[in-house]
Amino acid sequence: MVSLQTVGQLGENESLRRTVARLSQSEHAIVGSGDDAAVVATTDDRFVVTTDTMIEGHDFRLDWSNFYDLGFKAIATNLSDVAAMGAKPTALVVAIAVPPTTLIEQLEAFADGLRDGCQQLAPGCGVVGGDLASSEQVFISVTAHGALEGRESVLRSGAKPGDIVAIAGTLGRAAAGLALLESGNADAISAYDDWVAVQRRPRPPIAAGISAAVAGATSMLDVSDGLAKDADRIAKASGVAVRLNRRDLDGFIAMVEEPAMALGVDASAWVLFGGEDHGLLATFGPEAKLPREFKPIGVVGQGEGVWLDDKPLPENGWDSITGA
Amino acid sequence: MVSLQTVGQLGENESLRRTVARLSQSEHAIVGSGDDAAVVATTDDRFVVTTDTMIEGHDFRLDWSNFYDLGFKAIATNLSDVAAMGAKPTALVVAIAVPPTTLIEQLEAFADGLRDGCQQLAPGCGVVGGDLASSEQVFISVTAHGALEGRESVLRSGAKPGDIVAIAGTLGRAAAGLALLESGNADAISAYDDWVAVQRRPRPPIAAGISAAVAGATSMLDVSDGLAKDADRIAKASGVAVRLNRRDLDGFIAMVEEPAMALGVDASAWVLFGGEDHGLLATFGPEAKLPREFKPIGVVGQGEGVWLDDKPLPENGWDSITGA
Repeated sequence: MVSLQTVGQLGENESLRRTVARLSQSEHAIVGSGDDAAVVATTDDRFVVTTDTMIEGHDFRLDWSNFYDLGFKAIATNLSDVAAMGAKPTALVVAIAVPPTTLIEQLEAFADGLRDGCQQLAPGCGVVGGDLASSEQVFISVTAHGALEGRESVLRSGAKPGDIVAIAGTLGRAAAGLALLESGNADAISAYDDWVAVQRRPRPPIAAGISAAVAGATSMLDVSDGLAKDADRIAKASGVAVRLNRRDLDGFIAMVEEPAMALGVDASAWVLFGGEDHGLLATFGPEAKLPREFKPIGVVGQGEGVWLDDKPLPENGWDSITGA
Repeated sequence: MVSLQTVGQLGENESLRRTVARLSQSEHAIVGSGDDAAVVATTDDRFVVTTDTMIEGHDFRLDWSNFYDLGFKAIATNLSDVAAMGAKPTALVVAIAVPPTTLIEQLEAFADGLRDGCQQLAPGCGVVGGDLASSEQVFISVTAHGALEGRESVLRSGAKPGDIVAIAGTLGRAAAGLALLESGNADAISAYDDWVAVQRRPRPPIAAGISAAVAGATSMLDVSDGLAKDADRIAKASGVAVRLNRRDLDGFIAMVEEPAMALGVDASAWVLFGGEDHGLLATFGPEAKLPREFKPIGVVGQGEGVWLDDKPLPENGWDSITGA
C-alpha cells in the first residue's frame, strides 16, 4: 500500500527539503537556497528583474493543469519577460502557497516542472531561493533575474516609424489550447494535444531575446495578453502606430485552423487576440538583419494604435483583474 | 457622497497606475516599473535576493492589520533578510492579489505602506516592479534585493566556538502584540499599542546588518521564527552550540513584562520563542568590537543545540505550514 503524504503532515521544513532537492542549480549562484537570501553573480554592474503571479481559479485550473505544468509555465512566463529585455536569464526565486492537503508528490512534480523549464528554456538558469506557505487557494509567485552582459536593455519605447515589426515564437496556439480545454470536448482535446500543450507548458523563444538585442532591436516585449494588446503597448510607449500585414499572419492562422474548425470558431481571433504563447514582439531598424527566429509581420508608422492592413485593430486582450 | 470604487470596477491598468504613482523611486533603478522587467544597478558583480510571502488568514488577519500595515510589514520582513546577509537593500518587486471587491483606497494604502517602509527602514531602496492579480484570499509576495558593496556575505554557517552571540533589535515585542490582538481585550490592545504596533509594522534594524558585516560578524540571520528556533539554525549550519545567558535577556523580558502581566502570561516565553520582531542575531569573534546596535546575549560553544544557561532550550518556533 502506498502511503500518500500531504504537505501538512510533513510540515514546512521536510516538504521544502524534498522539493528543493529536485531543483537544478543556477550556474550563477554564489550562495544558493538555505540562508536568509541568495547571492547571484552578475555579468556587469546591473541586473534585470521581473515578477509574475499565477493564481488558482484565475490563471489556471487544477483539473486542466497538473503541478508539473504549473512549475514549467511559471518558469516560462517569467523567463520570457527577462528575454524581452534582451537579457540572459540567470536565477529565479519561487514562492508557492498550497493547501495543507496537497500531496508531497504534487509539490515534487511542481519542482520537476521548475527544473525542466529552466533546463529546457534557459540552461544554466536555476532557482536560488523560495518560500513555501499554506493557503486555501494555490498561489505561485516567481521573480526572475537576467544578465545584460554589457548590452543595453531593449525597452518598449524605442520603436520608430519605418522600423520592421517582427515576432519570434508562436501566436494563437495557447489560445487554441485554452479554447479546447474550455470546450470540455475530450476527443478534440486529445486530437489537438500539441495546442493544449502550449497552453499548459508554453515554450517561449528565450534565446531569441538576446539575438534581437544583438541585432539592434529598437523595442521588444513578450506577447502575454495577445498580439493586438501587446502591440498597442509598444505603440503607446513609443508614440507610433504599429501596422500589421494580414498576409504575414496567414502562416500563424494556418497553424491553428484545424482546432478552430473542430470547435467552429475563427482562427484569426486567436492569432490577433489570444495571449499566453509568450512570443517576443520586436521592432528593428529598416536596415537591420533580422535574427533567424524572427518573422516580419508589419511596419512601424507615424500616428498611433495598432492597424491590420488599413483597419484599426481594437485592443482586445486580457485584464487580469476584470478577467475581460 | 463619496463614491467607493473597487479594484474590480477600475480594472488592472487603472488600479496599478493609481498604486504605482504613490511609490517612491529606488535610487538604484536604471529602468523602473512599466516595461517587461526592471533594470537595477549593482555596486559590484553580485546581488543579494530573497523572497517572502504573506497570506490572509495564515500570516495576517484583515481585522487586525490594515492594508497600510501589510505594505509596511511586507517591506520590513524582506529587508531584514537582505540585511541579515550584510547587504544594503536596493530594490524590491511586489506581487499582490486581492479580491475584486477590494477598495482602491485599500490598495493605495498598501502602496503607502510600501513607500513608508522603504523610506523609513532603508532610504534609497524602492519598488521597481510588481504584479496585481485577482484572488479570493489576499496574497502578498515580495522579493527584495541588496548590494554587498564589495563585502563578503554573512552566512549562518560561520559561527565558531568562542564567538560572542549578539542581537540587534527587539525580542518578544511582536509576540506580545500578537497575544494582545488574540486576547480580543480592547482595553489591553489600546493600553499597549506600542507592542501591537511592532506586530503590525515591525521595524528591523536594517542598517545594523551592514555594521555587523563591517565588524566581521561570523554568522547572522534575522529572527523571524523566534530566538530559540533561529539560534538553532545558526547552531545547525555552523556545527556549534549557541549558549544564551538568561541574565542578558532580562532587559528584553522587562520590556514585555507589562503586557504579559496584563494577560497573565510568561514574558520570557515571548522573548525566547516569539517571532516576527525581525531582529538580527549574529556572532562575532571574541576580539571583535560589537557595533553599537548589538547587545551580547551569549557565547558560541562546542557541541550542538541552543542552551539557556546550562539547560537545553527546546526548538519551539513557528512552522508556516502546520502553524505549530
